[in-house]
Amino acid sequence: MIKFMDDDFLLSTESAKKLFSSCRNEPIFDWHCHLSPQEIYENQTPTDITALWLGGDHYKWRAMRSMGISEKYITGDSSSHEKFQAWAHAMPYLIGNPLYHWTHLELQRYFDIDEPLSAASCERIWEETNRKIQSGGFTPRALIEKSHVACVATTDDPADSLAYHQLLAKEADFSCKVIPAFRPDKAVGIDLPAFLPWLQAMEQRAGQKITDFTTLCEVLKERIAFFDSLGCRASDQALSYIPCVRMDKDKLNLIFKKAIHGETLTAGEIDGYKTELLRVLAKEYDKHGWAMEIHIGAMRNNNTKMFRLLGPDTGYDSIDDAPVAVGLSRFLDSLAVEDSLPKTILFCLNPKDNYVLGSMLGNFQNDEAPSKIQFGSAWWFNDNIDGMRQQMRALMNLGVLSKFVGMVTDSRSFLSYPRHEYFRRILCDLLGGLVENGEYPADFDTLSEIVRGVAFENAKQYFSLTDE
Amino acid sequence: MIKFMDDDFLLSTESAKKLFSSCRNEPIFDWHCHLSPQEIYENQTPTDITALWLGGDHYKWRAMRSMGISEKYITGDSSSHEKFQAWAHAMPYLIGNPLYHWTHLELQRYFDIDEPLSAASCERIWEETNRKIQSGGFTPRALIEKSHVACVATTDDPADSLAYHQLLAKEADFSCKVIPAFRPDKAVGIDLPAFLPWLQAMEQRAGQKITDFTTLCEVLKERIAFFDSLGCRASDQALSYIPCVRMDKDKLNLIFKKAIHGETLTAGEIDGYKTELLRVLAKEYDKHGWAMEIHIGAMRNNNTKMFRLLGPDTGYDSIDDAPVAVGLSRFLDSLAVEDSLPKTILFCLNPKDNYVLGSMLGNFQNDEAPSKIQFGSAWWFNDNIDGMRQQMRALMNLGVLSKFVGMVTDSRSFLSYPRHEYFRRILCDLLGGLVENGEYPADFDTLSEIVRGVAFENAKQYFSLTDE
Amino acid sequence: MIKFMDDDFLLSTESAKKLFSSCRNEPIFDWHCHLSPQEIYENQTPTDITALWLGGDHYKWRAMRSMGISEKYITGDSSSHEKFQAWAHAMPYLIGNPLYHWTHLELQRYFDIDEPLSAASCERIWEETNRKIQSGGFTPRALIEKSHVACVATTDDPADSLAYHQLLAKEADFSCKVIPAFRPDKAVGIDLPAFLPWLQAMEQRAGQKITDFTTLCEVLKERIAFFDSLGCRASDQALSYIPCVRMDKDKLNLIFKKAIHGETLTAGEIDGYKTELLRVLAKEYDKHGWAMEIHIGAMRNNNTKMFRLLGPDTGYDSIDDAPVAVGLSRFLDSLAVEDSLPKTILFCLNPKDNYVLGSMLGNFQNDEAPSKIQFGSAWWFNDNIDGMRQQMRALMNLGVLSKFVGMVTDSRSFLSYPRHEYFRRILCDLLGGLVENGEYPADFDTLSEIVRGVAFENAKQYFSLTDE
Repeated sequence: MIKFMDDDFLLSTESAKKLFSSCRNEPIFDWHCHLSPQEIYENQTPTDITALWLGGDHYKWRAMRSMGISEKYITGDSSSHEKFQAWAHAMPYLIGNPLYHWTHLELQRYFDIDEPLSAASCERIWEETNRKIQSGGFTPRALIEKSHVACVATTDDPADSLAYHQLLAKEADFSCKVIPAFRPDKAVGIDLPAFLPWLQAMEQRAGQKITDFTTLCEVLKERIAFFDSLGCRASDQALSYIPCVRMDKDKLNLIFKKAIHGETLTAGEIDGYKTELLRVLAKEYDKHGWAMEIHIGAMRNNNTKMFRLLGPDTGYDSIDDAPVAVGLSRFLDSLAVEDSLPKTILFCLNPKDNYVLGSMLGNFQNDEAPSKIQFGSAWWFNDNIDGMRQQMRALMNLGVLSKFVGMVTDSRSFLSYPRHEYFRRILCDLLGGLVENGEYPADFDTLSEIVRGVAFENAKQYFSLTDE
Repeated sequence: MIKFMDDDFLLSTESAKKLFSSCRNEPIFDWHCHLSPQEIYENQTPTDITALWLGGDHYKWRAMRSMGISEKYITGDSSSHEKFQAWAHAMPYLIGNPLYHWTHLELQRYFDIDEPLSAASCERIWEETNRKIQSGGFTPRALIEKSHVACVATTDDPADSLAYHQLLAKEADFSCKVIPAFRPDKAVGIDLPAFLPWLQAMEQRAGQKITDFTTLCEVLKERIAFFDSLGCRASDQALSYIPCVRMDKDKLNLIFKKAIHGETLTAGEIDGYKTELLRVLAKEYDKHGWAMEIHIGAMRNNNTKMFRLLGPDTGYDSIDDAPVAVGLSRFLDSLAVEDSLPKTILFCLNPKDNYVLGSMLGNFQNDEAPSKIQFGSAWWFNDNIDGMRQQMRALMNLGVLSKFVGMVTDSRSFLSYPRHEYFRRILCDLLGGLVENGEYPADFDTLSEIVRGVAFENAKQYFSLTDE
Repeated sequence: MIKFMDDDFLLSTESAKKLFSSCRNEPIFDWHCHLSPQEIYENQTPTDITALWLGGDHYKWRAMRSMGISEKYITGDSSSHEKFQAWAHAMPYLIGNPLYHWTHLELQRYFDIDEPLSAASCERIWEETNRKIQSGGFTPRALIEKSHVACVATTDDPADSLAYHQLLAKEADFSCKVIPAFRPDKAVGIDLPAFLPWLQAMEQRAGQKITDFTTLCEVLKERIAFFDSLGCRASDQALSYIPCVRMDKDKLNLIFKKAIHGETLTAGEIDGYKTELLRVLAKEYDKHGWAMEIHIGAMRNNNTKMFRLLGPDTGYDSIDDAPVAVGLSRFLDSLAVEDSLPKTILFCLNPKDNYVLGSMLGNFQNDEAPSKIQFGSAWWFNDNIDGMRQQMRALMNLGVLSKFVGMVTDSRSFLSYPRHEYFRRILCDLLGGLVENGEYPADFDTLSEIVRGVAFENAKQYFSLTDE
């Protein structure tokens, strides 16, 4: 029996241990996350472990609801201490859930606590974590630096001012680079209630009226140039499925006018608008050498009652299952045929799509970059041992794992960096297993180069991260 | 090499063995099956092993057809002995099929026969099983009691009289509780030939004409109350996909009238009727504290020629692959927003839907019960080692396995209870593996509580089974 | 640690080794491939290892593009030596990809080279392979005979003359039987640009005008009889999904006329035409005792730019994800109900369909053959360890693996036969694992019969291959 989460955690062979030792200290490039640049700038010490752990983490909220815990102890008006108790008491029942491992990795790496969290240890750990938080080293920047993060790319709306990015760029004593990523979801979501309010915000930011599709595109291109000037290297769009309905400018301007007059659009009009706006944006990304991230398959805000109470991103999203192959192929081809397909990273939330995406990559690879089209790492509901192994095995079987740009945290928490360690352990166990099993030679020079590549170097090269 | 199906069968680690020893003797709550209450009441000794094994088991019939065996030896007019011979000769070729394990578990547990069934052992086993059957202990009630079954929930049509349930409730010397479960498939299937005959039967049972949707709902509510009075704790509906088309009463009454006049309904009308009837029923289940089981993804009666010869449930069903996420989300939300979503158990027949269902649960969990929304165990074509492991790993990754209500037999056979043992072995091997692998502490108090919960206690609590 | 790809490669238990030793020397029946009968007849020595390996292998081309290698070194005008260098340098990065194993199996089995291919060994291996090629034993027929191939079924268009099959049948000193397989994709693809050119070719071959659907069917029936006279035992059709729209002859003749006049057909017309033509063909296959192979789920020619440059089958295909269950069921049933469903082999390219297909088989099995309806082996993008294990485990769980007709190469390369060895190792490791794990008795007589069956004997019997 292996000791619970000790130094060899998830490393089942000698080869795996050897490989992990060669990449565990690589820096982290957190190229897709939801950290707040404002919080990084303001750099406040959190009030307590509950604020740090349970303040905004909808993964944990879902788990607590699944335990039958009352909302009072989740997002309600209970005390910090009561909420922590609810979480601690639930913990042992989360056997096999990634939250079980993340929680204990965070206790080990940031608090030097090796004891499992449970009802029995609840009060001890409440006191020790809070004592340590108050004694310093738990501000956003301290946590980022302690985690060896070389660069963080936050997720930002085109209408954002990026004021905190500008401020952070002037902070000489912070070793981590903080850059924006361009997320035009609200511009694309012409069928959603958030569209018109977003358009107003965008008009204010741009200082001009946006009365047609053409103007919208011009304004967005200007924002892309502005994001680029602050170091942006990637865009990101979330789509439940990939539309591909081609339309001309006149029709698009008409649809845009219908939308701003509050008229209902047909499914075809919505898909046409989305397709062409995404195409305009993609060409612009390509001009700037950005990568285009596409996150496919999230079905959001499924619980109307709780949406009204708590708003979005509170733990009421799940996995969609629409077919994606044909739309995605046609969309990417429509750009490739015009020589304007940017570097692209395809993420799927439904693991049934692993082999569709893994094989789609190969249709559009060329010599513009090693694995120009990437299969994004196991994400959100798949961010667990099974999901990561399956994504990596699909990529290995269908493409070139060695050129994979690796893990993203996709996180709102400053404590989430041990997930990179988790990922690296799983990667090294997978490749170490191949060596032990006679499926790959014991050539540790090449193997080390491969795991260091996936851990950090590939992403650094892919996104053209400069050292400065 | 581990000895064939010995006491440590499927328990690959010491931790797994320890866990299995703590739950193997838990009682069984067979909360979803197709046993006949009449057969339990009449309690006849079966004529021979062929009647017991091959009389109505369409899993075995399919396997025999896949071997190329003539229908004569399956459902035809061959002798019992010839049919048994055909099965015995096929057995060794069913390597890896769950029928191979089920058959040998049944031989071991009910007949004390450890020898593998094959052409070589055929005659010996034919004689020994039949001798033992005739010497007693093989009536339905004897088998149920020998299997430590605390409660059986049969599957019953709203139009059923439940006469045998009433008779069984008076049998003081039978230790197992037999309760009905409410299966309104024929009421829901307005588009199927069985609808009008069912409506007639329902009218006779209710003693009134059912001329519109409103009356249908009233009659069904009365039946629900009647089922409840006989201890019913759950309903069950089978749907190839989940419709969610909202409609008002007038339209529904019109559709109902069209149906009873034999007019063809549109797809939209059928979906509207199904949606609203299921919603009416769900609200009623919620009032009675029942659980609503939804079985998604079976495509039935695929072979017209054999359907004409043998009827339904004869081995000609398979797995559908329609998208299910959006309809299921909207349907559940339509109830949750009115605070009338009952406890719900989602079963999928297509393993591609494991992650859709596993993530859907979390959208509707609250403090009404620990894991109020359940992911039903691997079912029918997935009722094998891979299917059960994958369902449990999906549930672990996405939710709280510890609160899982566990295994169902879904069986027509009184010999199927070793499938609970099979399930418990797989469960214990899975969790034991996490401990051995350093993924969970060796805290066997909590671990034992968890496996006993999944084996029996969670279901007992979830369905509010009283001890009496 | 197991030595890299030694004699026990992929055989992790003693039982696996024992089983492999009992089937490794079985002959090969390559019943689905894309070898050229002309090349077999002409029997030329290849110019060098680049011609043999990289001349037409779009699997390798995709991998090279994924490495970021310029098209110049893939399909461009670089020298043979440069192309080989590009491939050799890429090799170590293809860790986990089946190309890594196939390449080294080919080096070991045909060239007696055990050294891994890499930048370091590139020149040594370039020289040694080319020296060996020039010293003889690398013609198509020599490679086929060295690989113990008893029979090759090529893939042939109905309009093909089969002249090389006729010539090969007269070659007394070639031990391998070369038979055609009937691939009517171009006849079925009425919606594709290739249809009218194909129709002209077909008219020339048939020596008559084809002016309506009825005539087309007559001509194709004559070709089926001609193929049969040259030993054909199977047909093969590729479909992204399975249509099932029934239509009468008049409508079909109208659709056919529209097509030959270049008019655009509706989706319904296309599906109706495809359904009925496939039904006519299937009945004819059944009359001749042929097997009908259906390859489901390839989405072809996704990159328009590269299609214009390089044409089809150049590495720009991927996996589709349309639902397939309902159409496939209705189509097969439409034949079964008329007692004219031929032996059928269902292949899926999307692994999400494994359980749909695996369960579909059982709907149509009968005593016409052991496993009359077959689940085709893991194919193309799934032709790797994971894909093969998953296909075999699905088949075991749902049907009868023992009667599986086993591996196909689906290859254009005369060096691809070690993939049968690869498959046999995976099969034996799977079944050996069951024995070691106590899931099956250590009855090696039956086990050997099973693995020899899957390796060769089942296919020989299924396709009625005569010994002569």
